[in-house]
Formats: sequence, structure tokens, C-alpha cells
Amino acid sequence: MCYIAEGIKIVNEAIDFHPELVEQVLFTSNTEIKPGKNPLLNTELVDQKVIDKISSLKTPQSCLAVLKIKVKEKFHFENSEDIVLFLDSIRDPGNMGTIIRLADWFGVSKIVCSHDSVDCYNPKVVQASMGSILRTEVYYEDLTMALERIKPEKISVFGATLEGENIYKTEPVFPAIIIMGNESEGISDKIRPLLTKEICIPNYSSKQEKTESLNVSTATSIILSEFRRIQNYSK
Amino acid sequence: MCYIAEGIKIVNEAIDFHPELVEQVLFTSNTEIKPGKNPLLNTELVDQKVIDKISSLKTPQSCLAVLKIKVKEKFHFENSEDIVLFLDSIRDPGNMGTIIRLADWFGVSKIVCSHDSVDCYNPKVVQASMGSILRTEVYYEDLTMALERIKPEKISVFGATLEGENIYKTEPVFPAIIIMGNESEGISDKIRPLLTKEICIPNYSSKQEKTESLNVSTATSIILSEFRRIQNYSK
Repeated sequence: MCYIAEGIKIVNEAIDFHPELVEQVLFTSNTEIKPGKNPLLNTELVDQKVIDKISSLKTPQSCLAVLKIKVKEKFHFENSEDIVLFLDSIRDPGNMGTIIRLADWFGVSKIVCSHDSVDCYNPKVVQASMGSILRTEVYYEDLTMALERIKPEKISVFGATLEGENIYKTEPVFPAIIIMGNESEGISDKIRPLLTKEICIPNYSSKQEKTESLNVSTATSIILSEFRRIQNYSK
Repeated sequence: MCYIAEGIKIVNEAIDFHPELVEQVLFTSNTEIKPGKNPLLNTELVDQKVIDKISSLKTPQSCLAVLKIKVKEKFHFENSEDIVLFLDSIRDPGNMGTIIRLADWFGVSKIVCSHDSVDCYNPKVVQASMGSILRTEVYYEDLTMALERIKPEKISVFGATLEGENIYKTEPVFPAIIIMGNESEGISDKIRPLLTKEICIPNYSSKQEKTESLNVSTATSIILSEFRRIQNYSK
């Protein structure tokens, strides 16, 4: 199984760091690409029209790569992991891609998604991840079963809810699983009883009417940032 | 001048909290709306086809409101403000809307945008702001001139750059202006010399190849969160 990654940046990254995943590269004469670097790669100089036809972008770029999907076994917690992100029914491709980029930034290399989350190889997800899809392992699993399976390892399970403990007063425990829920429903009723601790980001609006929630990718960024800050700079 | 806000949530909020801005409400018989609540409002029961024709959404909802644009004077720093957000050339409507929602959440009521930033009344911005556009004052100004004008007030000007001081080691000073820059270029060369302090969010990836930056709305969320955390919970 394959997916398409578009644009010079991700294509060059795939060629340089993940040549084993590159099935084919298509590029036009306008592309600053390095297809000569690895003579084993299947690269092809094509007309822009060919790329335009394949591309799912509004403004197709001058190159794209067909990349192999690494088939992911079941997720296992390894000793090297200190944070693993679980996504419970994230539906929006932009959010999924942004969260993959965030995870990569904050040194979280495994993301476990519920089966009803958006496909991480959706072109919009790949685009929003800005290349981070290449560096992140994304699993699709029944989250309840994944949590049951790793129960003996006694890993703390944090989940973002609107009623949780103020994150600025919460002491993170590592290793940690952090669960983020659906864009409008939050963490599902099946998963919520499995949390060790519910956390929330306080609302500082003084207005009579308030915004009810944060976008899930911005909430994820604040939580990952807090965990890393306390891990590295607290005490 | 007017703009269109779509969906039951923002329309109800406009009716309840900002009736003076409501020019017209269109709704279908399927809408759980409260048009009778304020008899002075210009509300009209229409066929879904009418809304489909006006809507800019892929999946039009059952109601929309035509809302007046409040004309904004030049931005002035008031004593009640402790954080004002400056946006230097934010181009993506999704980012702009998400940042407006974030500002609302973190009690930042004024946002000053450079003239080349995306229009905050763009339908995608309004949608992504999830109603926060109603509660936030957005100004469009030359940022250099705005910064010059408020110079006598000695307000600290923080800006997010890739080379700035680690935000987890930075002591915020209030009142503060926080400047976020363009999606790919960052803060412009004109503005950068006007910063009091450059700040950055550290990268925790241990991988050989790294993601180069965070999305601007997730970076904004981390910075606003850090400022509010230190203001409220530090010491």
C-alpha cells in the first residue's frame, strides 16, 4: 500500500532519510530535487500536467513521491518511550496532521488512533504534518483493547476533558499516555473510565459568554508543552 | 459593511449577546433558533435552498446571520489589557480563526493584524473562530506604526522566532505585546528589531532529521498558555 506526498521538502526528506519507503518520485524540470543522489530510486522527469492530474492540492507543486505505507503491528509500550499520544476519534485531517507535527516536535514518536479517526495517509493529513508523518509511527487500534493490554505496565493515562484538574497544577507522571478526544464530543464514554487522571486547560476569558472549548490541536500543543516543561525545567 | 456567520451556535450567540450587530437572520423550519426572543430582529424563515445558495460551507447548516462589521479605530493600549496579540502577515484562514478562538480562551481581547494578514471576516476564519470573532476586537494596522505609537507606554514586546530565548526559561513581563509571524517567513525584518525579547519553543525531537517549526496557531497556544500560567501560578 502506498500514499502520495507532495512538495519539494517532504520529497527530499523521503529521499534522504527514508529511501526504503520511496516507490517512485515524479518531478518537473523546475524542481530543485536530488533524484541523482540515489541511483536505485525510481525517479521520473515529467511534465507539470502529469503532476497536476495526480495532485490533490489546489496548487500542485513541481514534485511528488509515491511512498510505501509501513504496516504497523499492534502498539507496544517500549522503555524508551516517555509519552505516547492516543487519539480518540479525531476526524479533521488538518487537526490530525497538525497533531502529528506537534508530536514530532515534542519527541513523541508513537501515536495510537481509534479506528474511527481520520486516515493519517489522507493527502490533507500528510500535507499538514509537514513531513512529520515520515518520522512518526501511527497505529490504528481499538483504544480500549490497547489500554487493557498495557495495563500490567502501570502507565499513567491522562485525558483532556472539560472537567479535569487544572493542568498548571497537575504533576505529570512518566511514562505517560495522553489521550485527546473528538473535536466536538471529547473523549468517548468507553475510554473515560480508563483514565488515571482527567486534566483541563483553564479558561481565562472574563466575558459573560465564553468560548466552550479549544481546538483539539491547540489543546494538544499546550498539554505536550506542559509535560515537557515540567519534565525538563521543574525543580 | 457586513459578514456572514453560519450555524446555530454562533447565530444564537449573536442574537443573545450582540443583537445590535444582527442585520438579518435566515433560518429553516429545522432550526432550533430563538428568533422570537427579540421581536426587533429581522429574522426570516426560508427554504434550505436559500441558505445553500448563500453559504460558503461544504455542508451548509440550517441557519445563518448577516452581521454588521464593527469599524475599528486605531488600536490603543488600555490599562485593562495585560496581553495584546499582534499578527504579522498570518495568511491562512484556519490559523487566523484558531488564533482568534485561542485569544478569546486566554482572555486576550484585542488582536492587531498587519494589513497583509487574512481578513478576519473571511467565512473560513469566522467558522474556525467558533463564535470568538464576536467577542474579540480585531484591528488592521501597520504594525510598525502601531508599535511606534505605543512606545512611550514602555510595554514589553515579545516575538516568537526560531532563535529566541527558551520560553520555559523566560520571565514574562506584563503588560505584554506578543507578536506571531507569518506561516513560513516568521516575523518580518521590519518588525524584528522592534522586539524587546525573542522567545522560542524548544524542539524535543531526538531524531536526525527534525521538523523545522510548529504551526503558528499551535505555537500561539503554547505561548499564551505559558504567559497565563506564570502570571497565575508562578511563585
